[in-house]
Amino acid sequence: MPKVLGLVVEYNPFHYGHLHHLNESIRLVNPDYVVAVMSGNFCQRGEPAIVNKFARAKIALMHGVDVVFELPTIYAVQDAGGFALGSVGILHKTGVVTDIVFGSESGDIDFLKRVAHLLTYQTPEFEVAFKKQLKLGYSYPNARKYALMDVLDKDVNKLSKSNDILGIEYIKALIRYNSNITPHVINRIGADYNDETFRGKFSSASAIRKAIKEGLFETSKEAMPKFTYEVIHEEFQAGRGPVFWENLEFVIALFRKLKREDFEKIYSFNEGLDLRFYESARETGDLQQFVELVKAKRFTYSRIRRAILHVLFEMDKEHVEKSNELGPQYLRVLGFNEKGRELLKMIKKNSSIPIISTASLYKQVLEGVEKDITEEKRLWDVDSELYLWQFEKDLLASDIYTFLYPNKSTRTAGMDFEQPVRI
Amino acid sequence: MPKVLGLVVEYNPFHYGHLHHLNESIRLVNPDYVVAVMSGNFCQRGEPAIVNKFARAKIALMHGVDVVFELPTIYAVQDAGGFALGSVGILHKTGVVTDIVFGSESGDIDFLKRVAHLLTYQTPEFEVAFKKQLKLGYSYPNARKYALMDVLDKDVNKLSKSNDILGIEYIKALIRYNSNITPHVINRIGADYNDETFRGKFSSASAIRKAIKEGLFETSKEAMPKFTYEVIHEEFQAGRGPVFWENLEFVIALFRKLKREDFEKIYSFNEGLDLRFYESARETGDLQQFVELVKAKRFTYSRIRRAILHVLFEMDKEHVEKSNELGPQYLRVLGFNEKGRELLKMIKKNSSIPIISTASLYKQVLEGVEKDITEEKRLWDVDSELYLWQFEKDLLASDIYTFLYPNKSTRTAGMDFEQPVRI
Repeated sequence: MPKVLGLVVEYNPFHYGHLHHLNESIRLVNPDYVVAVMSGNFCQRGEPAIVNKFARAKIALMHGVDVVFELPTIYAVQDAGGFALGSVGILHKTGVVTDIVFGSESGDIDFLKRVAHLLTYQTPEFEVAFKKQLKLGYSYPNARKYALMDVLDKDVNKLSKSNDILGIEYIKALIRYNSNITPHVINRIGADYNDETFRGKFSSASAIRKAIKEGLFETSKEAMPKFTYEVIHEEFQAGRGPVFWENLEFVIALFRKLKREDFEKIYSFNEGLDLRFYESARETGDLQQFVELVKAKRFTYSRIRRAILHVLFEMDKEHVEKSNELGPQYLRVLGFNEKGRELLKMIKKNSSIPIISTASLYKQVLEGVEKDITEEKRLWDVDSELYLWQFEKDLLASDIYTFLYPNKSTRTAGMDFEQPVRI
Repeated sequence: MPKVLGLVVEYNPFHYGHLHHLNESIRLVNPDYVVAVMSGNFCQRGEPAIVNKFARAKIALMHGVDVVFELPTIYAVQDAGGFALGSVGILHKTGVVTDIVFGSESGDIDFLKRVAHLLTYQTPEFEVAFKKQLKLGYSYPNARKYALMDVLDKDVNKLSKSNDILGIEYIKALIRYNSNITPHVINRIGADYNDETFRGKFSSASAIRKAIKEGLFETSKEAMPKFTYEVIHEEFQAGRGPVFWENLEFVIALFRKLKREDFEKIYSFNEGLDLRFYESARETGDLQQFVELVKAKRFTYSRIRRAILHVLFEMDKEHVEKSNELGPQYLRVLGFNEKGRELLKMIKKNSSIPIISTASLYKQVLEGVEKDITEEKRLWDVDSELYLWQFEKDLLASDIYTFLYPNKSTRTAGMDFEQPVRI
């Protein structure tokens, strides 16, 4: 069996830090193939991507990734836990990925594994510590962090970095899927994920987006490999970007159409978030101010932005919970190169869920799946209703996304019905 | 019994033509009181009003109207038939209005009455003529017009003007409510309703709005009585206007969330309008272009713009049809003067539906109505469910409307919970 490296990425946009991570991962695993699962048009910070998923997939392929799958939207806009369940789910369900490498501040895989195991097989000792922290008024992620450090008797700073937190979720997801994939970590270099300061070549994706927003696209060029800049430049020239979160301001009008009970049905609306959304949408017509009004100690900015998308995409609790239980229901191909074509053939033989290459055929794919089960006794592990729900949310997300394009004449729907990128 | 003049207005914005109509109507009827029913924040052309309903009510009161009632939104954004059912319904249900005056191009009340009777008690002869015209491919309004002219043996040009068409609907509504109100017509002067050319003092409301849109507010001053200009100027200064139809562009994102079947449930979606909306929302992100794509011989621009609002406000077929059968369920006071206070007392004793003065008490008003029925045997003619549905659409319309304000800091919801204007 060939070695297949799996990566979880957003590439929003692809920068030198990503390139370093990609090259280091390849050096570490020495794989025959590289497959990436990438957020689509909306990212984990609850924001639309600066350019669309096909452009970003193209950039990934140009830098050595062989196949890019889309992380279904409903996972891409969840917290670290849901994001990891979706992305590791995709890699695991290909049936061919052997290794995953992710960035880590601690660089300590054994520590991360211990934490992941502790969180998965929650001991009574941990439970007590967790409840104690919640009672002290800490947010869920913080209470969990402090409880863990209590139990593991470690310095709390050891677990305060976003890559490590995400890494633990990846390992938890591997445990959950009972996966044989081997996890590795490499030290993250360059700017911190949340660092918005532009630092030349070592700027974070946030800093690059901020520079672009401030009209400094040419300056931000310094932080991007040549191909990234070229593809993004082409997108901007065509009026398909940059896409900013602020363009979503109209959600406030949408929220004013909803009753408080309507919010309650949506995933992630608990702890009073429904009331805060309901009331804040009435108090302001400014999206940034809306978020400030909703903000509370227990609600991070990212959570609020994601919750906005949960309402916009009508991600009801029932379907998200079912998705988190069963994992992704399809492998959506965004792009591939020549080697990727071979890999896709292998995946087709080994995956537990079907591949969607031509989006317009997604219903036929499902029929094929159902036919497979009965005629060829191939054991697909697909819930038909969930498959349709998840994929139709990707279609919807794209149709909302293109509406955010700066140039009105490019705002057509149906982006998904384009063919995957081939290089 | 005192003479009470009832007027149906939009005042979007109030101009010299409106002032002339008001003064001529008073001269003709010589009333003790003047009551106007006015479109709220959205008007019959399917557009948001240039300034909000309270500002427009204030202007009406300043020019001699004693009480301004709001035409419930769900009537204000219907075609001539529904608009007339709502507005005449309000005036009739006050129980005190004795005369209605409306503008007319023909100035021939007898002719309009004949047409109204013919349309109400549709003769077989008319039915045949109507079907013949429809088969020739004419739109509903046109087919009806040609059929009428056939039957009445009149020149078709006699019935091609918007005021006459609306006037016929007013008379039909009077017949429908079995009302004793006497209808009168006066000749319209000044520019045609649809004339968008600015013609100084004699400009139409459309022309004034167009001038404002083009940044010529100071020029448009010439077409407005002093008080109109002052009130509107104050609104603009406060950032609460001008409000333009184009600000509703986000509805396209909303439409992309809907399936074709969702449109089918909405009032006015027939003859294939649902499919055209569904498809056009996917083809463009530009509202003007959207309307052009939907446009067909059988769908006028106004109808399309109104249909956009029907979706936005979720005006389902069932409730609109019930509303057109039962008429308005409340008298919503937007403003009154000293004389108006007396008139409101009279109306309270004579009306068949309750008065809503303080919007925040609208549910209590309904409880009072229900109590009245049982305890005081007062015969209110109210359907509780429909009352709530109609009024909550007014609240929603206002909450969407304020989101369209140019100045973000003024975009708060809950405008309706302000007190009515008193001068």
